[in-house]
Amino acid sequence: MTRTRMLVSSRCLGGNFSNVFLHAAVLGIGMLMSSTATAQEKKYAIVIHGGAGGDPTKWTDTYRQLRLDGLGAALEQGEAMLASGADALDVVEAVVKMMEDNETFNAGRGCVLNENGEHELDASIMDGRNLNCGAVAGVKQAKNPISLARLVMSKTRHVLLMGKGADEFGEVAGVELEGPEYFRTERKKASWQKWKTGNADASLHRPKSVKPDDEQLYLGTVGCAVLDVNGNLAAATSTGGLMGKRWGRVGDSPIIGAGNYADNETCAVSGTGIGEEFIRHAIAGDVAARMRYGELELKDAAAAAIDLLPDDAGGLIAVDKHGNVAMEFNTPGMSRAHADSSGKRGVWLGRENE
Amino acid sequence: MTRTRMLVSSRCLGGNFSNVFLHAAVLGIGMLMSSTATAQEKKYAIVIHGGAGGDPTKWTDTYRQLRLDGLGAALEQGEAMLASGADALDVVEAVVKMMEDNETFNAGRGCVLNENGEHELDASIMDGRNLNCGAVAGVKQAKNPISLARLVMSKTRHVLLMGKGADEFGEVAGVELEGPEYFRTERKKASWQKWKTGNADASLHRPKSVKPDDEQLYLGTVGCAVLDVNGNLAAATSTGGLMGKRWGRVGDSPIIGAGNYADNETCAVSGTGIGEEFIRHAIAGDVAARMRYGELELKDAAAAAIDLLPDDAGGLIAVDKHGNVAMEFNTPGMSRAHADSSGKRGVWLGRENE
Repeated sequence: MTRTRMLVSSRCLGGNFSNVFLHAAVLGIGMLMSSTATAQEKKYAIVIHGGAGGDPTKWTDTYRQLRLDGLGAALEQGEAMLASGADALDVVEAVVKMMEDNETFNAGRGCVLNENGEHELDASIMDGRNLNCGAVAGVKQAKNPISLARLVMSKTRHVLLMGKGADEFGEVAGVELEGPEYFRTERKKASWQKWKTGNADASLHRPKSVKPDDEQLYLGTVGCAVLDVNGNLAAATSTGGLMGKRWGRVGDSPIIGAGNYADNETCAVSGTGIGEEFIRHAIAGDVAARMRYGELELKDAAAAAIDLLPDDAGGLIAVDKHGNVAMEFNTPGMSRAHADSSGKRGVWLGRENE
Repeated sequence: MTRTRMLVSSRCLGGNFSNVFLHAAVLGIGMLMSSTATAQEKKYAIVIHGGAGGDPTKWTDTYRQLRLDGLGAALEQGEAMLASGADALDVVEAVVKMMEDNETFNAGRGCVLNENGEHELDASIMDGRNLNCGAVAGVKQAKNPISLARLVMSKTRHVLLMGKGADEFGEVAGVELEGPEYFRTERKKASWQKWKTGNADASLHRPKSVKPDDEQLYLGTVGCAVLDVNGNLAAATSTGGLMGKRWGRVGDSPIIGAGNYADNETCAVSGTGIGEEFIRHAIAGDVAARMRYGELELKDAAAAAIDLLPDDAGGLIAVDKHGNVAMEFNTPGMSRAHADSSGKRGVWLGRENE
């Protein structure tokens, strides 16, 4: 895994993911495929989201491009790892880490701020081969909450650690740490101030409508679901939660069975949207249950799960053991990307591929 | 609800729940039934647990009796409310509150202490008629975490609040508060010291075996699932978590779909045991999913869900819309009680009714 990640990192270093991805797209996918002929003989598939909500047709070109670039770079990293035979768990962690490091998404560095102008991050990861899982809620120190979640899975006998205790575990476990300044950038503080003025009590009432160009302030949970060449599934999800959240609110991202789930026998799922609705309907687990007990195909199971949600509540990505992929949402858009070993590939924001 | 609860409370005041329950048992259930002839025409059912784990045949008579008394008193309160036509949600809250107030169980006042000798309480409640739900994790101030969870459900647009933020919400919402002394009794502090000596790092390794008479130190999550006379289902679960827990560990009790779930179309469920396993397998949601998509009866669905767990991991109680009840566990015992409008009634600790 380390080898693969370094290989990809060296190609992406410098931060110009956009150019790297566009370059790859212009040259065609053959470039990647030709270098991985051996691994290509086995199936893999990757699907990524960068949040649902808002109407991408109303976003500025600049913001759309930031989204497309971030998704494209993450997709490329994940696909290169998969093509090299990397383990599903390593891939979902690496992909989500990359999106956490990208300020465009509401996770890691790009997280929104809570009512007090602080950051509280949630993440979870799950290994489909044995149902091992790890999650953190309300953490403030880990540069990459997804890596902290993975350490919870691998280094403790617990699944979910929260708040200060989870941060203390991160110190002991040796996760990479960052101070508040890393997350609370000047730009974000300014956005937060603007948002707070119009939404004094967001935990009691739905936020007032925001202008399209403000949507980046609170959208963009990230997630990745993968089938690797050994037939293993994994899923990872990470978020900064709701802009202006209060009282230690936790959404669905760190809740196994709600915002994240993986089981080799059914599917790997990552959700994004109004977390409360995903918890109430146990959305990620519902997709798996409809496959397991209802004998639905992945796409039908995913669509039926999304149908449980109120309008405009969110979306999910999922992959099954055959490499089939679902990207379902009941919002105007869901930032998403998909590639697999058959050569399928795409990056989308709205309903442009339907 | 208030009228009913006051009626029951006045009969139970003085704390001698044992005598009240034994008295009722000696007189027979007719006593309760005769006073509620009207409501009796409609079906109701209640099932309660006070934790799984340990071997009740090895407990002292005194400890066994404390368990039986606590379960019996809670059952009586719940049944009286149901017979008077109370709402399922009010009943599960009242029953769990009563068990939280009873030092015999690991919830509310009786909670175990964490690694630092502090208390961190988790609870959740769910309304089967609309899937509304509320939960709290790692709270320290609410006398009754289950009531705080209900306030999260009714007074915010969130499902899960954690830690200090959840406690601050409790202050604003007006939940009854208690200081640390209420939870950290001298007896518990002494037990904790004894436990800590033998289990320095419980979050990294499974605790060493404990003597049967110490089992009360870490067992006894409580829960209640109910069908009311209007056909509504509800479930509530509350716990102090794992003795010696560390790093803000959260178990399954506040996780909707893992330790608690209710849906009028399928069932209401409350789980107890090794929370990590309940989260990993999404146990409470699995029971409902097997009914919904697999068309299993409640008892078969509950047994199949418990079969997913490793040996000795825990148990669950559940009730469906027809008033059928399941009490499944793969431990030597699960403290539990059940009554319904047909006159069924019982309180059990181990496998004595099989």
